[in-house]
Amino acid sequence: MVSHFPPSNEHLDDQMVKMEVNLDDIPGEWLGYVMDLLFEAGANDVFYTPIYMKKNRPGVLLQLLCSQEHINTMKEILFKETTTLGIRYYPLTVHRLERMFRKVTTEWGEVTVKEGIYEGHVVQRAPEFEECKSIAQLHNIPLKKVYEMVWKALGNEN
Amino acid sequence: MVSHFPPSNEHLDDQMVKMEVNLDDIPGEWLGYVMDLLFEAGANDVFYTPIYMKKNRPGVLLQLLCSQEHINTMKEILFKETTTLGIRYYPLTVHRLERMFRKVTTEWGEVTVKEGIYEGHVVQRAPEFEECKSIAQLHNIPLKKVYEMVWKALGNEN
Amino acid sequence: MVSHFPPSNEHLDDQMVKMEVNLDDIPGEWLGYVMDLLFEAGANDVFYTPIYMKKNRPGVLLQLLCSQEHINTMKEILFKETTTLGIRYYPLTVHRLERMFRKVTTEWGEVTVKEGIYEGHVVQRAPEFEECKSIAQLHNIPLKKVYEMVWKALGNEN
Amino acid sequence: MVSHFPPSNEHLDDQMVKMEVNLDDIPGEWLGYVMDLLFEAGANDVFYTPIYMKKNRPGVLLQLLCSQEHINTMKEILFKETTTLGIRYYPLTVHRLERMFRKVTTEWGEVTVKEGIYEGHVVQRAPEFEECKSIAQLHNIPLKKVYEMVWKALGNEN
Amino acid sequence: MVSHFPPSNEHLDDQMVKMEVNLDDIPGEWLGYVMDLLFEAGANDVFYTPIYMKKNRPGVLLQLLCSQEHINTMKEILFKETTTLGIRYYPLTVHRLERMFRKVTTEWGEVTVKEGIYEGHVVQRAPEFEECKSIAQLHNIPLKKVYEMVWKALGNEN
Amino acid sequence: MVSHFPPSNEHLDDQMVKMEVNLDDIPGEWLGYVMDLLFEAGANDVFYTPIYMKKNRPGVLLQLLCSQEHINTMKEILFKETTTLGIRYYPLTVHRLERMFRKVTTEWGEVTVKEGIYEGHVVQRAPEFEECKSIAQLHNIPLKKVYEMVWKALGNEN
Repeated sequence: MVSHFPPSNEHLDDQMVKMEVNLDDIPGEWLGYVMDLLFEAGANDVFYTPIYMKKNRPGVLLQLLCSQEHINTMKEILFKETTTLGIRYYPLTVHRLERMFRKVTTEWGEVTVKEGIYEGHVVQRAPEFEECKSIAQLHNIPLKKVYEMVWKALGNEN
Repeated sequence: MVSHFPPSNEHLDDQMVKMEVNLDDIPGEWLGYVMDLLFEAGANDVFYTPIYMKKNRPGVLLQLLCSQEHINTMKEILFKETTTLGIRYYPLTVHRLERMFRKVTTEWGEVTVKEGIYEGHVVQRAPEFEECKSIAQLHNIPLKKVYEMVWKALGNEN
Repeated sequence: MVSHFPPSNEHLDDQMVKMEVNLDDIPGEWLGYVMDLLFEAGANDVFYTPIYMKKNRPGVLLQLLCSQEHINTMKEILFKETTTLGIRYYPLTVHRLERMFRKVTTEWGEVTVKEGIYEGHVVQRAPEFEECKSIAQLHNIPLKKVYEMVWKALGNEN
Repeated sequence: MVSHFPPSNEHLDDQMVKMEVNLDDIPGEWLGYVMDLLFEAGANDVFYTPIYMKKNRPGVLLQLLCSQEHINTMKEILFKETTTLGIRYYPLTVHRLERMFRKVTTEWGEVTVKEGIYEGHVVQRAPEFEECKSIAQLHNIPLKKVYEMVWKALGNEN
Repeated sequence: MVSHFPPSNEHLDDQMVKMEVNLDDIPGEWLGYVMDLLFEAGANDVFYTPIYMKKNRPGVLLQLLCSQEHINTMKEILFKETTTLGIRYYPLTVHRLERMFRKVTTEWGEVTVKEGIYEGHVVQRAPEFEECKSIAQLHNIPLKKVYEMVWKALGNEN
Repeated sequence: MVSHFPPSNEHLDDQMVKMEVNLDDIPGEWLGYVMDLLFEAGANDVFYTPIYMKKNRPGVLLQLLCSQEHINTMKEILFKETTTLGIRYYPLTVHRLERMFRKVTTEWGEVTVKEGIYEGHVVQRAPEFEECKSIAQLHNIPLKKVYEMVWKALGNEN
């Protein structure tokens, strides 16, 4: 099962679903693993929110976003890997920006910058986190230094 | 007003609703009471999430799940018992597992185990919390010991 | 762009939308500013929830409520001012109480009390926060004293 | 083991301790029970905070306040009833107000109001929650109505 | 009462205190105001954390940092403006970086950048938020554009 | 720099420190990386709590536990990798249980169980998470099934 890749042009996707599960009877350490499984199986996003449940129980609200075609896959993981007896979900619309990738050159090599384009204008520019992290580790420099160098390189190109 | 009991077989319920209220002008101690009232009046679940509201206000997001037939009852409690001037809600679908109950025998007596059955296979087995708690209190032993004994008893039956 | 003012009588509004964005690559100090911009542009409410995202990232879930006619305005602010590449949203219904405003007289002057009327009965009475705060600051007294005086004045009128 | 009752006059207590435990391998439903046990054994306060732990685990930080004489009792409960292998703690000072109790009369009977006195002046007045709740339940009225009546009664006495 | 300004050179300050209050009987809207009062009276920092308290109450943990000379001022505000009957506190040490301020020039004018110096090396560079925000508002451009320009200007100076 | 390994017998450690930093000007994605660096450099624990800071900013409280000998190492990472200008810390005592490791045999092979011994009695038994996870992945079975088998095996040995 591969991840769901939305198209790279700006678009409205009305085939998306948010799925939710309340959990008060599962250890937190299992939930880190469940998140990985859901991403691997094609979830577009997975995240946890702390909630206060009945009987003074600190619980966790698991939320995930997926396309409708992945609903059954997600349900299977949630039922098998968590302790829930019920899963709720509802449709939603996602407006995604056009995504483009460019390279900028720093003194430590190239870094990819992901751009988000809204109605034809670049509104987002995000250096790829994993690449910056690799440079930081390789050169033994603070991560924020790497980001600063990328911002500088980006600035000079404009 | 009795609670809403969904059927015990595996099913999709598309008559459910999530209701939400943002609260920044109510003391937390009232909210513990409101939760009780909502459960008693038939809510399937009620939980709180901390939220950050305008003007630096730590607020609370009340969320509840109920069947459509309980919407008006829930609204009445929320308007009368909280400080909100507005309640929002939207429909959602719930996939519930088949639920079965079995007894396991421990050295301190029987404990009910709730099982969740997904497409004909048992995927969840949860000892009833209140019964385990009663045993822990009666015999003055740690709750986790009780759970361990139940897990052992369950394991031996398989 | 002015704020969206719902009518003051009790009503169901089925033209509302909840919009959500997950954020893990933006500093918190920017988000205080974004909240202001969204309110100024007509959001009915904006609030943040802490979320746990992949790769051990503490993130923020931005949620806002607006009427359908404000969807594009909200999107534009979110895409330009935050770092998101996608915005999700779904319709919901809001039940709003009738709102009335009355004045009560305290020893420090008049204070407006907002009342919420549910099926013809007053169920909410909230002194206007900003007025109480101004009195507290002007007279150099604790805010809670001001509220106490307003509650006393309200009580005597009934 | 009885609860620790601090003296009712205004005082500084430098014999207090805060104890903390991080938990990522325990179900939330057990933690509601643990809180009860700790209060029964003499904790002055017990509360939970959501935390983000390593490996994407949503965890819980248990914090409790107790007097130094209760340290061992608290440790025993925490080691036996939770899953922790370590407990941390540090001393702190508590400044407590003088506490006085008075009765106010409402149309539904008397309610106790707890007053907090700071340097000889009443700065806090809190109706006893449990009494207000009992009245609300007995007379089938909203809890906030009860509080309003108490505030009115308090106001008229001044 | 003026704010407490620590010296601008790198130093250890062992005259600091953390003060904490648990709150479950105060509306969130009051707490936004209390934060302002504490800052005005000399708190070095004030922040709120959501906590789960007994009886299913969503509460708030107020934490503040101040110098020991401000302890009494903070207590007075907390006792008068919140609903607490007790305040706890303990000493702590703060290691502060040397702080320097420089100006960088962007196409929209100068912006102050605060630098943090650790053992003689600049490790932090933060454009002043309020100045960036003013530029964003004056020129009607996204705040993140302003930050990008400052980062570019900073990069070119190095 | 290697991790700090406390002794494996039950003991009180009064050489520990809690370090704290408030962060409102750093993206969440950097913080996942900072956590890793701190663990690698010898922190005993690192965790994040959501906090509400001034000006409506959702912030993050970083807390870490380390031995006094690691204070400088931790400070260096925090100053270089985060955006803070100040770090606070205070001493605390940790009571750690004796730790023992045993093997239990399941149908999928051996699993290590970490035991915590309090005053000579086993009070904690925790299957090693990473080993259970490896089995789950290798045999393509739910993680909770692995835990169930380990609990069963443990039960039968007693």
